[in-house]
Amino acid sequence: MQLSRPIGVFDSGVGGLTVVKSLMERLPNEKIIYFGDTARVPYGVKSVEAIRHFSAQIAEFLLKQKVKILVIACNTIAAVATEHIKKIAKDLPVLNVIESGAKAATLYTQNHAIGVMATQATIKSGAYTQAIHKIQPNCRVYSQVCPLFVPLVEEGLLNHPATLLMAKEYLEFIKTEPVDVLLLGCTHYPLLIPLLKQLTNERLCWVDPAITTAEEVASLLKESHLLNPSQAIPEHQFYVSDIPLKFQAIAEQFLGYRLQKLQLARLD
Amino acid sequence: MQLSRPIGVFDSGVGGLTVVKSLMERLPNEKIIYFGDTARVPYGVKSVEAIRHFSAQIAEFLLKQKVKILVIACNTIAAVATEHIKKIAKDLPVLNVIESGAKAATLYTQNHAIGVMATQATIKSGAYTQAIHKIQPNCRVYSQVCPLFVPLVEEGLLNHPATLLMAKEYLEFIKTEPVDVLLLGCTHYPLLIPLLKQLTNERLCWVDPAITTAEEVASLLKESHLLNPSQAIPEHQFYVSDIPLKFQAIAEQFLGYRLQKLQLARLD
Repeated sequence: MQLSRPIGVFDSGVGGLTVVKSLMERLPNEKIIYFGDTARVPYGVKSVEAIRHFSAQIAEFLLKQKVKILVIACNTIAAVATEHIKKIAKDLPVLNVIESGAKAATLYTQNHAIGVMATQATIKSGAYTQAIHKIQPNCRVYSQVCPLFVPLVEEGLLNHPATLLMAKEYLEFIKTEPVDVLLLGCTHYPLLIPLLKQLTNERLCWVDPAITTAEEVASLLKESHLLNPSQAIPEHQFYVSDIPLKFQAIAEQFLGYRLQKLQLARLD
Repeated sequence: MQLSRPIGVFDSGVGGLTVVKSLMERLPNEKIIYFGDTARVPYGVKSVEAIRHFSAQIAEFLLKQKVKILVIACNTIAAVATEHIKKIAKDLPVLNVIESGAKAATLYTQNHAIGVMATQATIKSGAYTQAIHKIQPNCRVYSQVCPLFVPLVEEGLLNHPATLLMAKEYLEFIKTEPVDVLLLGCTHYPLLIPLLKQLTNERLCWVDPAITTAEEVASLLKESHLLNPSQAIPEHQFYVSDIPLKFQAIAEQFLGYRLQKLQLARLD
């Protein structure tokens, strides 16, 4: 395989750009191709069948771009479509935010009690609990659905009284449980860490799967001798299925950089 | 034309069921075919091009079902794609919630000052302002974007402190303006009227375009001699492009009835 091939990263929208940001920092010489299905976002409230259908279309698009690894940067897709995508990817490695997040969380918990905050589809799938139990069968997992966090973040209300109110409600569950690690199982949620920290014990450990996934991609590429030897600054490519209102601003909030080379690619 | 042909109603999701509910009450003998694009909902944050592309697909689907009239029950589609859909519909009448809402609002305002609350795409299109000015050129229109209302309603937080907080912010604009009519330019918002009334003057007049649209459909069918003469209870048909989690509950909240004959129809 050509080592200069890109890393394919995809998500239902812009949230997966947090994984791209972590990858750009961890692996500055790797070219990244990103696909965000902004025409059909959000996936978190849709059916398993729809999510599988949509994500298969995206995976096929990225495979045509000759990527060397597929990274599922969307918790909802990771939760319900990983096996489906592995079949489509055949021999190509497929990593996802859930397995990476679960690995880190089990490493950090001392009480064997992890809290998972995510969208309804992710929690309902049980994927985080399964991934955690695969590594640490005796670990207790406490799940909390936080459906308002995505729209609040997308409206930029990162420090608004309404966000604080919702966060208080969503964090209620850790008061009565011995949780010492909180896994943020949705790409949008880490943007709320400063606000969430105001409401929680300072010894609580926060896991952002975007960061742990970038670490895991780096390890896997190294072990498989797939790292790009070139020292040139790569030109990343960003594809979206729609360029909606406020897109640039929201996307750059997630990416933390200026968005270069954005292209529209319709899937339907 | 066969008078027993159905009325075609469509929306980006379930919100348009409020129009169906009003139609069922106003025209109990008319058969209705509804299409909700639940696989790609919400439209309010997407581009004009994407919204036109999606709604053309839906209109073509309904035309194949031999409807006698097309009703755009979605404010976002009405705002940016009405002309596009009229071309596709050719001789068939096309009504929409914006023109119906604007007509009623201009009828009720005594101060010639109307407030419009809607999603970002609807407000940005200027469609309500244009529709109002077409009828009453000297009327002042004050617009307010309320992006959190849709997710709050979909989470059922109709009387939650966070909803109250957001509503207070969104209603700030009427304090300084002589608004005497508030037009709720999004199908979800009328479910918040009880909460909104707690925050406003009791003489304020509320316009729900779902109700005014049903009135207008009734008038148009009557004038065009297109009313169904049959006295039989019709069997309505509901199509959606995805059946997501909690769908039945949310859909019935909007429809106010048990959902009969629901079918899945993918557009892509």
